[in-house]
Amino acid sequence: MARWEPNARERLVRAALDLFTEQGYDATTVNEIADRAGLTKTTFFRHFPDKREVLFAGQDMHARLLADAITEAPSPATPLEAVGAALDAITATFTDDRREFSAKLRPVIAGSGELQERAAFKRAGLAGAMADALHKRGVREPTASLAAELGIRAFDRAFDQWADLTNQQTFTELTRHALDELRAATAALD
Amino acid sequence: MARWEPNARERLVRAALDLFTEQGYDATTVNEIADRAGLTKTTFFRHFPDKREVLFAGQDMHARLLADAITEAPSPATPLEAVGAALDAITATFTDDRREFSAKLRPVIAGSGELQERAAFKRAGLAGAMADALHKRGVREPTASLAAELGIRAFDRAFDQWADLTNQQTFTELTRHALDELRAATAALD
Repeated sequence: MARWEPNARERLVRAALDLFTEQGYDATTVNEIADRAGLTKTTFFRHFPDKREVLFAGQDMHARLLADAITEAPSPATPLEAVGAALDAITATFTDDRREFSAKLRPVIAGSGELQERAAFKRAGLAGAMADALHKRGVREPTASLAAELGIRAFDRAFDQWADLTNQQTFTELTRHALDELRAATAALD
Repeated sequence: MARWEPNARERLVRAALDLFTEQGYDATTVNEIADRAGLTKTTFFRHFPDKREVLFAGQDMHARLLADAITEAPSPATPLEAVGAALDAITATFTDDRREFSAKLRPVIAGSGELQERAAFKRAGLAGAMADALHKRGVREPTASLAAELGIRAFDRAFDQWADLTNQQTFTELTRHALDELRAATAALD
């Protein structure tokens, strides 16, 4: 039977981010991450399928929160209003603690082609979760996917600003502002 | 000095697609691809950095064609009109020969997480090339990126329909129709 390791997942994520920051993503092995966290390689693989995945912990929870909020938005809400409600729903996960983590995460992802690929794939997963929830509200294609795309763009923009530690706005203020800007941009396309 | 190999690139691409179709992407090695093409592993790596890249040959050319057409669009063209001109510009590369190749390519990519990640990354590269060209026309963010995104979505949709061999429309007809649908969808967001 596996030994119970308190906070194993969180410890592995932090150890990985520290090592990637210190010596680079490519140069870091799963063994080193487990060592730094005071855990075994077996424990690592109980929590993550591979080295890339360790930095994207929490995305499944985000996908669920986004989809649930869209499902629960009042029925007269437009597609973009439902997406706005979804972004509001994930705000609670963006704590101050998470913010320092995110500030360190950005340069690590920017420095690795492999991590950028995984990030793009995860992003597509979040957008897909929102689009599916919009379909269930009766929103058709391509409107549903486009609304979800605007939601993800607002999220990305807000996240970039929020992970900049000099910024003073809350995550909610940032996502709302970003979504308003995107709404205005759709009018300037043609 | 390297021996000149006629059509080495094209032969490698076709050999790879055939092998991936027959025995799966994961089970196929670079050695097998080179063998099937009647070439060496060294020749493979002169043309492609890795096994994944072999199916995405031609994307760099697409990025250039898209960007050039946006740059050369008449100055009163709106962002979406410039994107429409870009899609028209790549039509010539979608020949009948390419169409059968594309029909075989789709299930191979759909069957591999690795290939899907690379495809998503390549897609982002094409969108980035269009957005950069729009910036040079004075289109601001987030409008430029949004117009580029609509262009890529129209491209993806048209490509899917075109790679279905029962479809009778030309690639140009398909991209124009898809872009019109997306234009209409932006009006239904809110």
